[in-house]
Amino acid sequence: MGKQVFKGIIPPMITPLSDIDKLDVAGLERLVEHILAGGVHGLFILGTTGEAQSLSYALRQELIERVCRQVAGRVPVLVGITDTSLTESLTLAEKACQCGAAAVVSAAPYYYAPAQAELVDFYSALADRLPLPMFLYNMPSHVKVMMEPDTVEAIARHPNVIGLKDSSANLVYYHTLIQRMKKRPDFSLLMGPEELTGESVLMGGHGGVNGGANMFPRLYVDMYEAAASADIPRLRKLQERIMAISTTVYKVGRYGSSYLKGVKCTCSLLGICSDEMALPYRKFNAPEREKLRRILESLEVEVVNP
Amino acid sequence: MGKQVFKGIIPPMITPLSDIDKLDVAGLERLVEHILAGGVHGLFILGTTGEAQSLSYALRQELIERVCRQVAGRVPVLVGITDTSLTESLTLAEKACQCGAAAVVSAAPYYYAPAQAELVDFYSALADRLPLPMFLYNMPSHVKVMMEPDTVEAIARHPNVIGLKDSSANLVYYHTLIQRMKKRPDFSLLMGPEELTGESVLMGGHGGVNGGANMFPRLYVDMYEAAASADIPRLRKLQERIMAISTTVYKVGRYGSSYLKGVKCTCSLLGICSDEMALPYRKFNAPEREKLRRILESLEVEVVNP
Amino acid sequence: MGKQVFKGIIPPMITPLSDIDKLDVAGLERLVEHILAGGVHGLFILGTTGEAQSLSYALRQELIERVCRQVAGRVPVLVGITDTSLTESLTLAEKACQCGAAAVVSAAPYYYAPAQAELVDFYSALADRLPLPMFLYNMPSHVKVMMEPDTVEAIARHPNVIGLKDSSANLVYYHTLIQRMKKRPDFSLLMGPEELTGESVLMGGHGGVNGGANMFPRLYVDMYEAAASADIPRLRKLQERIMAISTTVYKVGRYGSSYLKGVKCTCSLLGICSDEMALPYRKFNAPEREKLRRILESLEVEVVNP
Amino acid sequence: MGKQVFKGIIPPMITPLSDIDKLDVAGLERLVEHILAGGVHGLFILGTTGEAQSLSYALRQELIERVCRQVAGRVPVLVGITDTSLTESLTLAEKACQCGAAAVVSAAPYYYAPAQAELVDFYSALADRLPLPMFLYNMPSHVKVMMEPDTVEAIARHPNVIGLKDSSANLVYYHTLIQRMKKRPDFSLLMGPEELTGESVLMGGHGGVNGGANMFPRLYVDMYEAAASADIPRLRKLQERIMAISTTVYKVGRYGSSYLKGVKCTCSLLGICSDEMALPYRKFNAPEREKLRRILESLEVEVVNP
Repeated sequence: MGKQVFKGIIPPMITPLSDIDKLDVAGLERLVEHILAGGVHGLFILGTTGEAQSLSYALRQELIERVCRQVAGRVPVLVGITDTSLTESLTLAEKACQCGAAAVVSAAPYYYAPAQAELVDFYSALADRLPLPMFLYNMPSHVKVMMEPDTVEAIARHPNVIGLKDSSANLVYYHTLIQRMKKRPDFSLLMGPEELTGESVLMGGHGGVNGGANMFPRLYVDMYEAAASADIPRLRKLQERIMAISTTVYKVGRYGSSYLKGVKCTCSLLGICSDEMALPYRKFNAPEREKLRRILESLEVEVVNP
Repeated sequence: MGKQVFKGIIPPMITPLSDIDKLDVAGLERLVEHILAGGVHGLFILGTTGEAQSLSYALRQELIERVCRQVAGRVPVLVGITDTSLTESLTLAEKACQCGAAAVVSAAPYYYAPAQAELVDFYSALADRLPLPMFLYNMPSHVKVMMEPDTVEAIARHPNVIGLKDSSANLVYYHTLIQRMKKRPDFSLLMGPEELTGESVLMGGHGGVNGGANMFPRLYVDMYEAAASADIPRLRKLQERIMAISTTVYKVGRYGSSYLKGVKCTCSLLGICSDEMALPYRKFNAPEREKLRRILESLEVEVVNP
Repeated sequence: MGKQVFKGIIPPMITPLSDIDKLDVAGLERLVEHILAGGVHGLFILGTTGEAQSLSYALRQELIERVCRQVAGRVPVLVGITDTSLTESLTLAEKACQCGAAAVVSAAPYYYAPAQAELVDFYSALADRLPLPMFLYNMPSHVKVMMEPDTVEAIARHPNVIGLKDSSANLVYYHTLIQRMKKRPDFSLLMGPEELTGESVLMGGHGGVNGGANMFPRLYVDMYEAAASADIPRLRKLQERIMAISTTVYKVGRYGSSYLKGVKCTCSLLGICSDEMALPYRKFNAPEREKLRRILESLEVEVVNP
Repeated sequence: MGKQVFKGIIPPMITPLSDIDKLDVAGLERLVEHILAGGVHGLFILGTTGEAQSLSYALRQELIERVCRQVAGRVPVLVGITDTSLTESLTLAEKACQCGAAAVVSAAPYYYAPAQAELVDFYSALADRLPLPMFLYNMPSHVKVMMEPDTVEAIARHPNVIGLKDSSANLVYYHTLIQRMKKRPDFSLLMGPEELTGESVLMGGHGGVNGGANMFPRLYVDMYEAAASADIPRLRKLQERIMAISTTVYKVGRYGSSYLKGVKCTCSLLGICSDEMALPYRKFNAPEREKLRRILESLEVEVVNP
């Protein structure tokens, strides 16, 4: 498969579970259709929002297979292969390739905190062996290191490296990458936080990998289109809606897991899929679920599974 | 003095020094005129870029007096009073008031890392005693704590609190503040990093406290105006220039002090003022200065004092 | 297998590799005999020093099998099962049980940074399903969270939880655990850093999981015995030797990986096994190896494979 | 004053206040006598435990004067001059010298996070200008940087630099310093955390700057003497008492300020001085005070001012 510039909204799909390490198959099928119906430009499975690291490899393989088969080329599928072991990353990538995925995505190996030169070593060895093009994934809060601009530039020289997803929420960094990758028009810069996708697209980014699009895919697609066409009044209006979600739906629980639990529980309240979670997380308890239901009501979202 | 909504570009002025704790008086006078000639909307002295914490109180008082006298009401002057001691903060605020400053700016006390409730205690006690309105200053990299949105909202209930400058570079945070302070149209949200001011103004912020405006005040004022009027093509062009500066001028030295040394040495190369610094920093050595000179040349900036 | 209080020196074994994901089988056999000949009280495989996270699961399983077979009950074998997926942890634990290991060791799941309550959830679920007793492993630099004393106490109520290895290097924390676990005389507190094992045993700890014992097992066993018998003059002398190693052998390379590369390259210089490493690490280059050789010479260690 | 090797227990005195920036003079006098009566080897004022950074300079000067006059040479007085401004540090040092203090103590300038080379620049300039010998103070949690062993060694070449107080709680670091400063028998290494003073003295350190000695000076002096004479059974018994205090008295409040509030409130319960605090801290509320009273009761400490 040749390179292509990935643009638009590519939701990082949650993984519907019926138990701590078992897929909710019916829910998964509904979720994929729900997201695609929103007009998204791709689908990213097994990312941070997909709880990939908490799932067994058998489940990850099953998910790759099911999603690729269901999507059936309607949009490109990106598959997270982030791992601390090169071999396990490659096994996931082989599976993704066999199933027809368009690209893989890899954050840095996340147990040891590698030095920048060690990141270059790791990613170069990985890119050399991959059967698919790769997105880098900058995720300092989880992997403990920022992928510095010099490092990105060094790794991006490899022909298999086609883009970067940035979840640092640091836009000085993002603008620096835009500036430095201008000479590489085929290199795709995607924004993790949905709160920042609009302005990042306006200022030269290519799109967003936005968790909220699990729940409300059309909203984020509309926002992307408003930004891509520099329709500022419309962008501001959509941004206000996006912030209303961000400051309420993602703030129900305590701890850093609030965002993920908020997305998953909302999908359950919308009747799409189960909100079971893989350990170390647990789904919202009844009072939290009820609190979220009332938030959705106040946002005028119809809840079918209270 | 009543409340006013501060908008536009309010440069955080460097402090020209002729020795480690002595003002470069002639340089200071030239610098103030150079900045004001750029059409800025205010002037902020004794901030992080002003090396305030490294200067003696006597020098800080002298600086307040000189700058307020020279500016003479042409633009509002904001004075940094950030301190770990409430009493010392108040002494600086009294001086600022006597000299005719418009407002004061205070980051959190920065030795102990206060809990959020302790921030509320500190700022409430400060606001109660201040003779001037106050800006909060969120600066987690230096004070070790993020001023959380709930905390900002609690403190902002005090009538003396009129705005916040955010230097976290985290725009998810900034958008959250915009969202939560919508009900307070008199509350001013200013952006620290110049790389993010354009988009933040576009999305609802009020302006920027941008260090680059020491060197090139007109550039940042133009950027602000393009953003405030949603002139996207012009904004993109100016942003490109701003990023060209950010990714070169601020990257000459090693360490976190590169940005500050880059601004100060550029002002020296432009013939405005000395680049002496207060300890623990030292000005660029000869090879670093020469490297910066060549960068400015490549940016087509005229160097008069190589 | 019933509970037993683990005491003494239980080296965290390096994993000898002949390629990035292939065992150096002959080197492994020599290494196991070298370590056991030093009189150690146990052997810990697949820990941080064993580069476990960088190795494929197939290799990890092979290693468990080979080491358990070779040790053949001469000392208890502890097996690292640290993983981000409960299922994968359990698969490793099953293998360890089948091969006759004495216990497993698990640091917190290390991608997401779990809250303390989430740690209790994860470890409780794990302990419920384990076929072997478990050591907790506090490793905040790698997993991003400290296992707080309340959390340890809550988890340790499970009968399968028999001890904790602390690699935080924070002895206030360690003393707090000693204090709080006094009521549990069957609970074993082991020290990670070899620089602190002596005094920790003197003050109530049970032993050390010390990487230096790959190279010089007898030295650390002697130190443990001096501490356990409160022979202060002898302990001070041995501590001096231990610090001479720590401040030289572990400081040859740059980056956080210096320690691990120093141990592995020393084992190669001693003629025990290969110093190949798993990515993201690479073995020392020739000048680094030569520098280490000279350090060993100055420490009067005989190098047989320069 | 010539150099001397400082040894033993040198309590970091709390600052008794009657209001947020006013000395409790009678309480201060009682406190000094209470501490000296415990047989301590020195007295350290204006450290972290003394809330120095939260106090006005006028109050700090008054405190230096009063304490030096009252102590009157019975033990050496050490004065904290930690500041972000070299000039202000020197002004405090001048005062300390005039009043007869024995030495000054300085943590790194704590607003900007200096690079290691910048620490050397700052401390060298400071040492050149000081009228008294200086202790370095490693306090990474508050100043954001660890003073690396190479840095300590470089700075310690200055004849005015006579020791280091380490509050990192990282004993690998402390042992590294012991190892590297062995050639400097006149250089004093003091331990901050009281939980670690015993073992650090046993292993080559010179003493402790322990906050608990405000409340119970004799206990920490006894512990020091047991350690210095390698009386292990006695040391273990005293350590148990010290840990019983550490795990209860310092854990009453929430936040990082619990330790400091616990010490100050205990001194108030003991009838020694007021527990007023400088902002951003506030003294314990009534339920917290009562909780602490019950803790002291369970520790069999007589409370005279419940």
